[in-house]
Amino acid sequence: MTTLDKHQPLLLSGDRFRVVYHLTGSPAHARSVAEEICVEQTIEFPADLITRSDIRDQIFGQVEALQPLDEHRCEVTISYAVETASGELPQLLNVLFGNISLKPGIRLWRLELGDELLSSFRGPRFGRAGWRRLLGIAHRPLLCTALKPMGLSPSELAELAYQFALGGIDLIKDDHGLANQSFCPFTERVKRCGEAIARASKQTGRPCSYLPNITAPAHMLFERAQLAKEYGAGGFLVSPGLTGLDSMRQLADDDALALPIMSHPALQGSFIVSRDAGVSHQVAFGQLARLAGADATIFPNYGGRFAFSDHDCRQLVAGAEGPMGSLHPIFPVPAGGMSVERVPEMLDYYGREVILLIGGDLHRGGSDLVASCRRFRQSVENAAQ
Amino acid sequence: MTTLDKHQPLLLSGDRFRVVYHLTGSPAHARSVAEEICVEQTIEFPADLITRSDIRDQIFGQVEALQPLDEHRCEVTISYAVETASGELPQLLNVLFGNISLKPGIRLWRLELGDELLSSFRGPRFGRAGWRRLLGIAHRPLLCTALKPMGLSPSELAELAYQFALGGIDLIKDDHGLANQSFCPFTERVKRCGEAIARASKQTGRPCSYLPNITAPAHMLFERAQLAKEYGAGGFLVSPGLTGLDSMRQLADDDALALPIMSHPALQGSFIVSRDAGVSHQVAFGQLARLAGADATIFPNYGGRFAFSDHDCRQLVAGAEGPMGSLHPIFPVPAGGMSVERVPEMLDYYGREVILLIGGDLHRGGSDLVASCRRFRQSVENAAQ
Repeated sequence: MTTLDKHQPLLLSGDRFRVVYHLTGSPAHARSVAEEICVEQTIEFPADLITRSDIRDQIFGQVEALQPLDEHRCEVTISYAVETASGELPQLLNVLFGNISLKPGIRLWRLELGDELLSSFRGPRFGRAGWRRLLGIAHRPLLCTALKPMGLSPSELAELAYQFALGGIDLIKDDHGLANQSFCPFTERVKRCGEAIARASKQTGRPCSYLPNITAPAHMLFERAQLAKEYGAGGFLVSPGLTGLDSMRQLADDDALALPIMSHPALQGSFIVSRDAGVSHQVAFGQLARLAGADATIFPNYGGRFAFSDHDCRQLVAGAEGPMGSLHPIFPVPAGGMSVERVPEMLDYYGREVILLIGGDLHRGGSDLVASCRRFRQSVENAAQ
Repeated sequence: MTTLDKHQPLLLSGDRFRVVYHLTGSPAHARSVAEEICVEQTIEFPADLITRSDIRDQIFGQVEALQPLDEHRCEVTISYAVETASGELPQLLNVLFGNISLKPGIRLWRLELGDELLSSFRGPRFGRAGWRRLLGIAHRPLLCTALKPMGLSPSELAELAYQFALGGIDLIKDDHGLANQSFCPFTERVKRCGEAIARASKQTGRPCSYLPNITAPAHMLFERAQLAKEYGAGGFLVSPGLTGLDSMRQLADDDALALPIMSHPALQGSFIVSRDAGVSHQVAFGQLARLAGADATIFPNYGGRFAFSDHDCRQLVAGAEGPMGSLHPIFPVPAGGMSVERVPEMLDYYGREVILLIGGDLHRGGSDLVASCRRFRQSVENAAQ
């Protein structure tokens, strides 16, 4: 390859970030897959044709560690040059898991990005402490519920929102399925629900934030976010699986919006659902949500109507709060068929740094929604003492 | 639920779209999962608490058909009200597979969206016939290669591009891993490669298009697309798994850009990699790529270095060209370790409506890249006669 041999040598910084994968197979097989990953995720070119040592030494991924996890799986750590990720989230995703997402037997397990790469990302604008300051709630777990079902009109949802706020809920979010349907247009919904929550909050003297679902087509995302803010939103609900992860990052980085973001996992289940491929719960809903600026991350709690295990949730929390340079830790929001009865158990499991999201179950307590919300709040206050 | 009982009745059009899922389990189990899907993907609320018949009848998904596929799987067709999708791609994705992506045993298999819903989407601006007209190539398969490996400078890549164009390649794309790295900045790369390709094309008298990789952070996507167009790009390479599917749709819909789009599957592998969950090849790389405006869809060919089967590729092509209202059919671009030797077999399999993408293998033919490209072209012309 004469073309590739005439060159100015490449001179990178030497800074590398580390990525942990779980690979199916024996150590010998895993070693061979790991070496394929080093090539596939960088040069994507026949390795034997690369005679330039500057490219081999600096651009290729490098296997840093490999150890068996059990009879059928190994954990491997691969490092990549910081420059390969271009300081951009889409390209970082590509280096982490772009092409190899297409291969079975490779699971992206954990990111160890390092300060040099992390300095390209602002991450969560508020994080746990910042959101607590906004709400004036220093210690206790936060209470959240959702406006639904789909099919209600804006004024019907606003009536629900009013009762939730009267009952002492801290955060009232749109159901993630409320977009801009003809039977429930975005602007009217946000206006009415925002007004209802402000009215109730004035009555109770307690802060209550409305989180409209601003998930929207790419060209309307900022317009909806701005409208929501104008109508008094206290934060945003975003489904990054639907908008793209970097669109959430862009919202979080916008100084004119500057409101907390709660991330919803819609469509992202495909990343985690296969146990021996895809992306771990920790990375998908913890580390990547955080890197992309979410202040809180919704996920299906163990023991609900989804198939997350106790261990999955533990790992996810590790991603949401474990060391990631100067990026703030974010709130886990376990959800998916939760009930007031499970509050003590959930607080025992998650501790106080959690947002408890109870949706449909609040409607099970009979027609007095305000009373159901008060029971929810009381049970949190009792358990958190 | 008094709140939900006082209402103006909901009155939708009655138009519904249909979605086919493959469910793991017996027919009885599948029936129960199908009924859960009808609720989870719409009201996401305890169904027994919905007493309003207008919501039950119109908003709930409806099981339209259920039949066993084999001992362990059933195919179920569910219809949803067109209005639930809000005429927006992110919300359509949410209705199709948002929450249920989190559940094992459910695979999104095929979309039957219907004219009413499809009228909200422009789809591919060019499609097969439109792109052929741009290139002036009426019948034969198109030849494509990629600029790589990562680590080369813009001028080194431009030298490769020049030789590829001299050798008769129709479409020269950036490798999808070329973003805006310090060692290969976007603007300089696109300028130099664009110039080199234009120069070679003038020498040969044959059209040759450059497809820069414009995959970028959300706030820079349009800037890169515009720059690429200014520097003479003949199309764009986009990885919708990295940018978000709707960002690709926005690029395709933009009348000022108006260039063909080739979609790359980076990070989308997680959708297809589990056989009994996630999204089928047909939907992920066929129907959804097309709905989001791609004119061509890259995927790993069977028998390459990825695990796609012959059947997966057949299904994918069905999604790329099967009936979807007035949406143009798009080119399949089988890739992933293809070689000139496989050209006759691939043309036998895919026919003429295909873009053949050969990357690294062109470099195996010794130092004369132009001669390797000519062999590739000759083998396509021979096989396509």
